[in-house]
Amino acid sequence: MSSGTAPLFQRAHRLRVSTKGKGLYEITPRIAEWLRSTGVSQGLLTVFIQHTSASLTIQENADPDVVHDLNAFFNRLVAEDNRLYRHTVEGPDDMPAHIRAALTLTQLSIPVESGCLALGTWQGVYIFEHRAAPHQRTVLLHLLGGA
Amino acid sequence: MSSGTAPLFQRAHRLRVSTKGKGLYEITPRIAEWLRSTGVSQGLLTVFIQHTSASLTIQENADPDVVHDLNAFFNRLVAEDNRLYRHTVEGPDDMPAHIRAALTLTQLSIPVESGCLALGTWQGVYIFEHRAAPHQRTVLLHLLGGA
Amino acid sequence: MSSGTAPLFQRAHRLRVSTKGKGLYEITPRIAEWLRSTGVSQGLLTVFIQHTSASLTIQENADPDVVHDLNAFFNRLVAEDNRLYRHTVEGPDDMPAHIRAALTLTQLSIPVESGCLALGTWQGVYIFEHRAAPHQRTVLLHLLGGA
Repeated sequence: MSSGTAPLFQRAHRLRVSTKGKGLYEITPRIAEWLRSTGVSQGLLTVFIQHTSASLTIQENADPDVVHDLNAFFNRLVAEDNRLYRHTVEGPDDMPAHIRAALTLTQLSIPVESGCLALGTWQGVYIFEHRAAPHQRTVLLHLLGGA
Repeated sequence: MSSGTAPLFQRAHRLRVSTKGKGLYEITPRIAEWLRSTGVSQGLLTVFIQHTSASLTIQENADPDVVHDLNAFFNRLVAEDNRLYRHTVEGPDDMPAHIRAALTLTQLSIPVESGCLALGTWQGVYIFEHRAAPHQRTVLLHLLGGA
Repeated sequence: MSSGTAPLFQRAHRLRVSTKGKGLYEITPRIAEWLRSTGVSQGLLTVFIQHTSASLTIQENADPDVVHDLNAFFNRLVAEDNRLYRHTVEGPDDMPAHIRAALTLTQLSIPVESGCLALGTWQGVYIFEHRAAPHQRTVLLHLLGGA
């Protein structure tokens, strides 16, 4: 359909995100803001989280109950019960956090069209925090594309 | 092993797919057909679905019982029970659909070799529909590569 | 933040990995070794596994109990019980293997910075083997980037 003949180049960026306990934290506006600053019109934007006890997901950003219910499902699915795990030294929520991360995403790549993330109408990009205590999380953004 | 010295360019395309209830719908032939039309020999093809109640997966396409059993597993894992969820206004299958999507994939990137998707012998690319009613789904294809 | 003005090119490679039953097998050093051989300084490295009964995950590589507990969780979550499945001809562990693969990843893309995989401090890339018997697995590596 579309075709890119502009020379390709790449850009990279790092987001720091503060989380305050288990749940989903939307980062779509911060990604979109950086994308605009690059001047890239068509390309592929990769989001990568540098952690194994927090992850990424794309979910509905219209009704906040959706991300609440999603987090509650993972609480039921992955029990905080030290008898189930060998890895318990970092607290009862740590091994469940690794499992929840393995069930979701560490990386997402999103096409870029006309300078914007080509997300569906209701799609938002979220950090899914799986630890109970506040954390500072690092997300890498990498963009391949053309002007 | 292999090395691409041809100039890189990008192409994008949009697939519309009709689904008829929960289950897996193979889209490998449609992706392969578009890939051939681009003339790209080596590259990276990204598949992105613009929805949060349908998702993507790569599964075995030899025995149709595999995708049947996969859908049945998700029906057992994610209960349709409104008492479990706050987000119930779109029907008993909607919040389970969001959860099933979060447990699978919104995006897949597949290497291209000699003009073909570098899939394993039994691998097929599927839309995983999580809603009960028929839907029209949009899948973006993005290709970075060289001739 | 960083910006790549060097001409872009692509490289591809194939890893063969022997597995000996269910569990996680780290492949980070083999990916890093190939990356060094390409001379790419900044880019995007994609890992793709050509199977539907083994998958990929990024997990903590500091405490080996983490990957043990992760495998044990999947053993509990996806029962080996032929009464639950139609697809039983390849053994009681085969359909559970397909489900476990669908719950994890077939593909991962990792940014490259200063010639290295931009992984977090404790992140390792693993093949997640879901079959009981020894297998030979094929993993494709694809790299887009510049010197």
